[in-house]
Amino acid sequence: MKILAFESSAVSASVALTEDEKLIAQSFQNCGLTHSRTLLPMAEALLQNCGVTLADVNAIAVAHGPGSFTGVRIGVATVKGLALGADRPCIGVSTLDAMAHGARSLGGRLCCVMDARAGQVYNALFAVEGGTVQRLCADRALKLTDLGEEIGQTPYFLVGDGAELCYNTLKDICPGLRLAPPELRSPTGYGVAAAALPLLRAGTACSPQQLDACYLRRPQAERERMKRLSGNA
Amino acid sequence: MKILAFESSAVSASVALTEDEKLIAQSFQNCGLTHSRTLLPMAEALLQNCGVTLADVNAIAVAHGPGSFTGVRIGVATVKGLALGADRPCIGVSTLDAMAHGARSLGGRLCCVMDARAGQVYNALFAVEGGTVQRLCADRALKLTDLGEEIGQTPYFLVGDGAELCYNTLKDICPGLRLAPPELRSPTGYGVAAAALPLLRAGTACSPQQLDACYLRRPQAERERMKRLSGNA
Repeated sequence: MKILAFESSAVSASVALTEDEKLIAQSFQNCGLTHSRTLLPMAEALLQNCGVTLADVNAIAVAHGPGSFTGVRIGVATVKGLALGADRPCIGVSTLDAMAHGARSLGGRLCCVMDARAGQVYNALFAVEGGTVQRLCADRALKLTDLGEEIGQTPYFLVGDGAELCYNTLKDICPGLRLAPPELRSPTGYGVAAAALPLLRAGTACSPQQLDACYLRRPQAERERMKRLSGNA
Repeated sequence: MKILAFESSAVSASVALTEDEKLIAQSFQNCGLTHSRTLLPMAEALLQNCGVTLADVNAIAVAHGPGSFTGVRIGVATVKGLALGADRPCIGVSTLDAMAHGARSLGGRLCCVMDARAGQVYNALFAVEGGTVQRLCADRALKLTDLGEEIGQTPYFLVGDGAELCYNTLKDICPGLRLAPPELRSPTGYGVAAAALPLLRAGTACSPQQLDACYLRRPQAERERMKRLSGNA
């Protein structure tokens, strides 16, 4: 089964084409340019270079968040548009799930963290056994200190754009933390496809209309508005 | 230091742009199309998408073999041409070195193998300690059974397009062999760049004229000619 997968939740952007467990092609970039400019040309060049069209893929997958509001929206909107135009089913996967699947070769326990600003990280914990990724908790936005208390002495590889922040803040109270190697630290299209494959096999793909972003938190503008309103109450 | 790196030694093809240890962008494909058709468009799209030109890179690196005679020749010729045109230095690295660097997140011992046909594999052995790749022997072409005797009971991750062949042939006599996960098994542009970085830092880049393919064996046509000549002698 072929999956075309998109990842644009944070600083990097990536598109991958997989057939079952095999990576057929992937483009990845982390050069600071806006995803709205780079994502579609990357996908177009990748498909053209492989001689594959959207009609050939079984589903289009995307990291639907958590992550940067703009980045997630660009990824989800791109996939909704492509899938609607080409009449393909969609699969939304957690960005943290995609990170864990991309880094599963490390084995052991993975702590996926994205910098959520405002003193928080987006996080989920995973255990990898024989190449299979198992989720240990739901995606959440929490304070680094709360995460540190939960991790305690347990050894974890840190994955994601919040890995260094987390390592530097928590290494003294969590001596089991280790940074994943840089080449496995960013989410990739391959990770999205690997996380989407079991969902596609289980028949849980959705329509382009059903696909939606999963932000975990409200956008900053809404948070500030609610704060103002509650302060005025 | 920025490196633009090419890998086209076997079935897959890949281009990567790195800055020191960081992967800025990578395109990878393993879809059976000829590298002569895909490699340059991949590089062009990658550079354009990143807003980088050849003048911005410190060196152009390539996996100079061992590998498919045609694939290696396409990679080396492409890099010679680009480097000559843009007046950039070149770095040739062993394809097996590139594989080991691409899979170094596995840690431990790595056995890099490419199917060399004619009952042989191209091979080198590596040890990874704290993310640093150390070569344990020179690149060589040898029989699988000879490799099996050398490996014995030692645990090794198998990397490269000969990994499955090697695993299936030797798993009974070498119980420590394990297949690397599929996403780390192919050589990549990132692996080439990671293997080239210490050479660039050590000042051992070469001119486009000096860059050459390292085949380890003579081409099949030459081998057969020599066999015929020695038979006639």
